[in-house]
Amino acid sequence: MKVSSLIGDRFKERPANCQVESHALMVRGGYIKNVANGIFSQFPPMKRIAQKIENIIRDEMDKIGGQEVLFPVALPGSLWEESGRYESVGSELLRFTDRTGSKMVLGMTHEEAAVQLVRDYANSYAKYPFMIYQIQTKFRDEARPRAGLIRVREFTMKDAYSFHTSQEDLEAYYDKCLKAYSRIFARCGIPQVAIVASDSGMMGGSVSHEYMLLTPAGEDSIAVCPECGYSANVEATPCIIENENKLPKADLEMVETPGTGTIEALCEFLDIPAENTAKAVVYQRNEDDSFIVAFIRGDLDVNETKLTAAAGCDIHPAEVVDDSVLTAGFIGPVGINEKVTVLFDHSLKDIDFLVTGANKVDYHYKGFNVDRDCDNPEYVDIAKVSDGGICPECGKHSIEIKRGIEVGNIFQLGTKYSEAMDFKYTDENGEEQYPIMGCYGIGVERMAASICEVSHDDWGPIWPITIAPWQVHLCCLRSDDAESKAKADEIYEALQKEGIEVIYDDRDVRPGAMFADADLIGVPVRVVVSPRNLEENAVEISTRDKQIDKEKVPVDSAIDEVKKAIEMLTNQIYEKVETEE
Amino acid sequence: MKVSSLIGDRFKERPANCQVESHALMVRGGYIKNVANGIFSQFPPMKRIAQKIENIIRDEMDKIGGQEVLFPVALPGSLWEESGRYESVGSELLRFTDRTGSKMVLGMTHEEAAVQLVRDYANSYAKYPFMIYQIQTKFRDEARPRAGLIRVREFTMKDAYSFHTSQEDLEAYYDKCLKAYSRIFARCGIPQVAIVASDSGMMGGSVSHEYMLLTPAGEDSIAVCPECGYSANVEATPCIIENENKLPKADLEMVETPGTGTIEALCEFLDIPAENTAKAVVYQRNEDDSFIVAFIRGDLDVNETKLTAAAGCDIHPAEVVDDSVLTAGFIGPVGINEKVTVLFDHSLKDIDFLVTGANKVDYHYKGFNVDRDCDNPEYVDIAKVSDGGICPECGKHSIEIKRGIEVGNIFQLGTKYSEAMDFKYTDENGEEQYPIMGCYGIGVERMAASICEVSHDDWGPIWPITIAPWQVHLCCLRSDDAESKAKADEIYEALQKEGIEVIYDDRDVRPGAMFADADLIGVPVRVVVSPRNLEENAVEISTRDKQIDKEKVPVDSAIDEVKKAIEMLTNQIYEKVETEE
Repeated sequence: MKVSSLIGDRFKERPANCQVESHALMVRGGYIKNVANGIFSQFPPMKRIAQKIENIIRDEMDKIGGQEVLFPVALPGSLWEESGRYESVGSELLRFTDRTGSKMVLGMTHEEAAVQLVRDYANSYAKYPFMIYQIQTKFRDEARPRAGLIRVREFTMKDAYSFHTSQEDLEAYYDKCLKAYSRIFARCGIPQVAIVASDSGMMGGSVSHEYMLLTPAGEDSIAVCPECGYSANVEATPCIIENENKLPKADLEMVETPGTGTIEALCEFLDIPAENTAKAVVYQRNEDDSFIVAFIRGDLDVNETKLTAAAGCDIHPAEVVDDSVLTAGFIGPVGINEKVTVLFDHSLKDIDFLVTGANKVDYHYKGFNVDRDCDNPEYVDIAKVSDGGICPECGKHSIEIKRGIEVGNIFQLGTKYSEAMDFKYTDENGEEQYPIMGCYGIGVERMAASICEVSHDDWGPIWPITIAPWQVHLCCLRSDDAESKAKADEIYEALQKEGIEVIYDDRDVRPGAMFADADLIGVPVRVVVSPRNLEENAVEISTRDKQIDKEKVPVDSAIDEVKKAIEMLTNQIYEKVETEE
Repeated sequence: MKVSSLIGDRFKERPANCQVESHALMVRGGYIKNVANGIFSQFPPMKRIAQKIENIIRDEMDKIGGQEVLFPVALPGSLWEESGRYESVGSELLRFTDRTGSKMVLGMTHEEAAVQLVRDYANSYAKYPFMIYQIQTKFRDEARPRAGLIRVREFTMKDAYSFHTSQEDLEAYYDKCLKAYSRIFARCGIPQVAIVASDSGMMGGSVSHEYMLLTPAGEDSIAVCPECGYSANVEATPCIIENENKLPKADLEMVETPGTGTIEALCEFLDIPAENTAKAVVYQRNEDDSFIVAFIRGDLDVNETKLTAAAGCDIHPAEVVDDSVLTAGFIGPVGINEKVTVLFDHSLKDIDFLVTGANKVDYHYKGFNVDRDCDNPEYVDIAKVSDGGICPECGKHSIEIKRGIEVGNIFQLGTKYSEAMDFKYTDENGEEQYPIMGCYGIGVERMAASICEVSHDDWGPIWPITIAPWQVHLCCLRSDDAESKAKADEIYEALQKEGIEVIYDDRDVRPGAMFADADLIGVPVRVVVSPRNLEENAVEISTRDKQIDKEKVPVDSAIDEVKKAIEMLTNQIYEKVETEE
């Protein structure tokens, strides 16, 4: 491929709307073009990167016995009704009707389709275990697409589904897949990806892990403990609280607290620490807008994902407009409207003296004690973990919050889908059983963007050789010089004959512009042919990561030197791939 | 891969709902599973075939300078509004709204997306010509999906778009692509695919061709002339009529014709040949249900696609319920309601004496003559071509109507999309011009099904080696026999080491069941290991197409013989691929 015919523009100016570096570089480098909010077309360099990532994934999935299949993008709504997710999943599931008025959805994940494909086949224990996967377009109608290819609405995903007859067998396979994932990330040049425990969310199931690439550009928060190695998504990290009783026990007493609709105002007015207040956080159930009021220690915040899990349904922050049910700013557990669901965070346990709303404008209760003043209070863990928090593993105040991009996830689904969709097999004793499932996802374009995020410099991406759009970028600095052009053409031909993927720049442009483009395309090995070097009968070889920096090599050994550089870069990646044996 | 772990069932009974053989065999052989009307999931054998077809297409597209890109499946409606197709395309374009209420469509073809991707880039003549393509999921909300993978709603398509600065350049590239397509079909084992002229339909543009695989299972009708080689879709074949005046000229006269609401009844009642009647065929415009009445010679039929083209809008067969506008059964051109659009087929020209409706129940006109009795009649070509019709090329009565499956199509689009979407470049003189486009499509799954349609026997598909899910099917007839099992295992390992794709059946099943499954999987080379053959120190080699039939070869040369068989089958295919040079 010649740069002169490569479609797409490369330019210097950083686009205004890019929050993260990978987004800016992928727009500037002619990788992607925005089509709609969170929807992109891919230019050839991005398509080539995606294909290489897909092939690595495919290879590792095949190695652990995966069988590649293909599910539809457009699925009948009835299939999602079988699992219950047609109702339970929020508006990120895009629902529509076809020309006959039948309910349809765009596949955002394919558990239902996987069960539908195999439930006739897998009717006997002898057919287990097995794993199927696809690499296919997914659509999630995200409310807030952001960061270029990191959070989009349409993307390519490898999603795998495994089927087992026992929890032990699932666990053994889960472990196998966990290792295959580590190999995939290492082969794609990001061996540093961390495995963290996660919340299963709408997928259901109990055990699940996320693969996190730590970078400040990440949108996920991960709690890590440098002391013991604990790491988990903050949503899955228990928040451990040790309460001191800062104020002595007292009787419940209603006091007038004019204009104290916020915790700050209240604490100032009463001159008490925020730790001695029980703050109300109000949400509504998506299904019927009924209220859930979560009380939490005044100095802490609610983690919405944890609260969703505790509530057991989809929720959204409430807008309290009608004061007939809740008295905004003065909500408290004592005497609260009976229609409201009340939850208490663990942080309110064992505090003798709390101030909380009295459900009456400008009034609060003092001396509130949850266990004394409420009947059967329901305690849940919904507090956000923060820096310096207590590690749930080793108990030290050592938690650090890091940012990361989720580049993969794996779930133990149990029998959630097989039970809901009446998928059974006959076991060795002739009894009917529900198969146990696991599922395993990797987003292809997000992976590419994440790699760019952790592997770039000011001038462009530094693609690992295993996923780079081309292996070699050949620059002919003076295509108007006949000898340079002839030599460069010759090297271009020779490299292609060796089966090496070359992008060749023989445009009549200034060296600065040529190198700027090469930096944006980010190809790992660069060969520069110029009249000055040819005078010395040499060409210049560099690697994009500067391990080799403008090394002059004799023209005759150029091809060998390029092959050596490719081999070196490839070996460096494979050294970090842990193999099974 | 072992048959014992291959997911999907194979069975003998022909499913009831299959109209064509490929559908039945693909269901019986564990290739596909129906998910919704016209929507299928693919089991591993189908996915493997699709991938091989895709790779052949990709290779040929790259060879003619194609650059692979990826467009979204879900596209903003606004993009289709730019081209005018959001309104003009019927309900096969699936329209929906996203969570914000924005109009979206599911991509059924990607001209708009292609223009959107390149219109910033391709702003100067120097960047032309170029071609981009993608291999991506498409959705067309077909009213009548049928015949398994032949007419579906969701499918994988390679769609390519070329951009040019002159009609000559487009034509030169179109010709290049035409040849690449012929190579693709030959490489996939169907060199007999015929190129026929076609109607451009909703794509717009003037010149277009279809690639037709002739088979009785096809849903397209093609007019071919064995005399001169003419071939075209019947929709694009002019119907040439030579009228004899079977009855002498006469004055227009209304006659009572009780109960003659059909042409048959009318001809019997008046004792005239059907060639002397002008039959009314009534359609309605989709947009406003207004009537179009087409008159045609009584013995001929209307081709709906031709009529659509003549009407210049989408239409549907009319239901005449209200007789205030049209008198069903007695409709005629004289005195017809003024709101109705009237068209005359060429077949009515130069007939002196016609019988036609009088727009009055139980009355007809005799002696009708179009040119004499109608003001400025509009003649169009809307008649169906039939066997024995006149060839528009050589003029002989030699037309034969064949059935075929459209496996590919190519269109010269002209500037339809660039003009509509304001896509311009600056030419050598600094003037703004609209690029000229071509587009080129191949449906992947339809291709697989079509190949199965023309290449199968009673027991299963006979896959050409270039697209077969595996190259070799290894059967161990008695896996309970230790020696057989060990030898088969050894051959399995050895073949894989040679890079040969093997599916290995070491199940403990009867030979009949094993061979039935092998026939359904349709793999081209079969190796059978059995105790009886091993006694003679031999294994049996066959090809699925019976060119080699149970040939005994020494165990030691088994691998070599398999390689020879693969080579022979591969060569047979490549002999029919016409190369450029």
